[in-house]
Amino acid sequence: MSQIQIGTRETDLSIEVDSRLAAFFDERITAAARYGSEYQHLWSSVRDASGGGKRIRPRFVLSAFRKLSNVGSTGETDDSAALDVAVAFELLHTAFLLHDDVIDGDTVRRGVANVVGEFAADAQAKGATEGRSRLWGETAAILGGDLLIQASHSLVARVPVAPAARAALLDVFDHSVFVTAAGELADVSFSVGVDEARLPDILAMTERKTATYSFAGPLTAGAVLAGAGGDVLEVLGEYGRLLGVAFQLGDDLLGVFGAQDVTGKSIVSDLREGKETSLIAYARATDCWPEIEPLLGRPDLSEADGRALAAVLVDCGAKAFVEELVAEHSTRAIAVLEASSLPEPLVDELSSVARSCVGRLS
Amino acid sequence: MSQIQIGTRETDLSIEVDSRLAAFFDERITAAARYGSEYQHLWSSVRDASGGGKRIRPRFVLSAFRKLSNVGSTGETDDSAALDVAVAFELLHTAFLLHDDVIDGDTVRRGVANVVGEFAADAQAKGATEGRSRLWGETAAILGGDLLIQASHSLVARVPVAPAARAALLDVFDHSVFVTAAGELADVSFSVGVDEARLPDILAMTERKTATYSFAGPLTAGAVLAGAGGDVLEVLGEYGRLLGVAFQLGDDLLGVFGAQDVTGKSIVSDLREGKETSLIAYARATDCWPEIEPLLGRPDLSEADGRALAAVLVDCGAKAFVEELVAEHSTRAIAVLEASSLPEPLVDELSSVARSCVGRLS
Repeated sequence: MSQIQIGTRETDLSIEVDSRLAAFFDERITAAARYGSEYQHLWSSVRDASGGGKRIRPRFVLSAFRKLSNVGSTGETDDSAALDVAVAFELLHTAFLLHDDVIDGDTVRRGVANVVGEFAADAQAKGATEGRSRLWGETAAILGGDLLIQASHSLVARVPVAPAARAALLDVFDHSVFVTAAGELADVSFSVGVDEARLPDILAMTERKTATYSFAGPLTAGAVLAGAGGDVLEVLGEYGRLLGVAFQLGDDLLGVFGAQDVTGKSIVSDLREGKETSLIAYARATDCWPEIEPLLGRPDLSEADGRALAAVLVDCGAKAFVEELVAEHSTRAIAVLEASSLPEPLVDELSSVARSCVGRLS
Repeated sequence: MSQIQIGTRETDLSIEVDSRLAAFFDERITAAARYGSEYQHLWSSVRDASGGGKRIRPRFVLSAFRKLSNVGSTGETDDSAALDVAVAFELLHTAFLLHDDVIDGDTVRRGVANVVGEFAADAQAKGATEGRSRLWGETAAILGGDLLIQASHSLVARVPVAPAARAALLDVFDHSVFVTAAGELADVSFSVGVDEARLPDILAMTERKTATYSFAGPLTAGAVLAGAGGDVLEVLGEYGRLLGVAFQLGDDLLGVFGAQDVTGKSIVSDLREGKETSLIAYARATDCWPEIEPLLGRPDLSEADGRALAAVLVDCGAKAFVEELVAEHSTRAIAVLEASSLPEPLVDELSSVARSCVGRLS
């Protein structure tokens, strides 16, 4: 998810999120030393895995919290609880990335070795076979994800708010994990071929796997902390789901048509992987499918073939169709905001995020 | 961990634990239906994975809670919070089993297909390749474990107790997960060959991987709920770690020398797997090692060779050594209880558990 823009007024809080994340990992890395160097290594590798992201989930938590809080005459809010929840969502995100990498068999993320890759390389350097090295890498990533799921929940559970608010926060968090797992399972069911990936299924999977925990969850959690009522939570949940889908569809487009220097990944990687995206689901139902099928998912797909495939995805109308879907979701997300009673500054900010989602594709 | 015996007076509570577990899974299976049949299947498969155990962790929670509570003249306690925590430990245990099976590459547990095996078989029946079927099975087990880690924490976080008690409970739970992950990492480091498995390392790994979350954690959590002080928590933690190690060492012995009809597993399975146990760590430092090494970890090890290997483990003194270690840990665990100010009924019960640990080997 690249180029998301959220109000710069929260920049100071964003720095505070990073500093709390750093303090969290420092404490764990120190505590892990008691249990041997490999465990300490695991924690520092997990810390590295949590770096480099755009912290969009923390930003959503903090934006919703601040713009929905009844700020006194000083204009100050007590951000401590919101910062904890912001950090919790970021840890949860890292946990999902770690387990996603195990499931996808990836050893690299954002251009460098991920936890799997790092530990596997370590074992190989110590003379372990390739199979055992891979097992070592996957073990580290599975345990790393487990530890972060646990830690993120513990943070939410300890937020110093009234019991009703904590229960509501836990509900948001529980729901986020429950739905994300459903989305991840659906995603893999498509790639394994257990389920057929028709377009509505792809959209539902996208909403579950990404939009819920990345958009709807953080926004509603921030609102809960600000003491917002059920109608506000509903609006933010609906906006978050629509916008999350718009962003993920945008990522599908950028994955094939984006400039590599912007996205940081090769335009053939989705195609080599045979990823079941909205583009592919659309193309499958067109006359162009016979041109696509033989090339899709070939690990040895050349850059030239990748460009040819991308051209077919334009010709068959998949690109235009998905662009239209992005615009439609983004427009609907803005309409949900405008029909609501949310405070104007929050409507403005979230509308601008929704517009940036379309803008980044052009 | 077979044949553990804890007070039968808690039988009614044990039934209540099962009924709460059943209600928990019923609710999740119903909620999962909204997200498709595969997700519902995942939840029912995870429910099945949680069955068949001896519920020793819930029993420890409830024993400590009841015997440390200031029971009024009616002899009644409000067990609801303790039952929630008991269920939480059982869910956490199932989560660890699910991820352990992925890491160990196991597709069978307690004689039937586990989550990995069940989902993999499903995918194969639908025509997926072996590799993709395995991926489908592993995905299901990884997500299933994630969901139970989340659910167990959420249960603990919602226990209706005073803030200080909830914070203490969360500490116990956090510590259990943190230490168990360290133990699991160490265990795999031995089998992959990243670390050397010397005897002290095996004992430390055992304490971390099993004793903490299965014995010390549940006992101290029950004590926290009963309002016990720091000295009681310390005693129970120490007892739990010693006894947990004794039990795991006992399992190492039963794994090689136990009768198959008692343990439910072949006496060659640990040897075929090449599992780094206390027996093997001891034997490695003896003159018998050259007789053991060539056979250990051979997937095609015959029953006859298995019996021959077991005989060498007797001859080299490994069996006697580990039996002595079990007795010593059990004795030390009882000594810790007897030197404490714990109420007599709890000392009696936990001493009897410690004695049964030695008794089950003869």
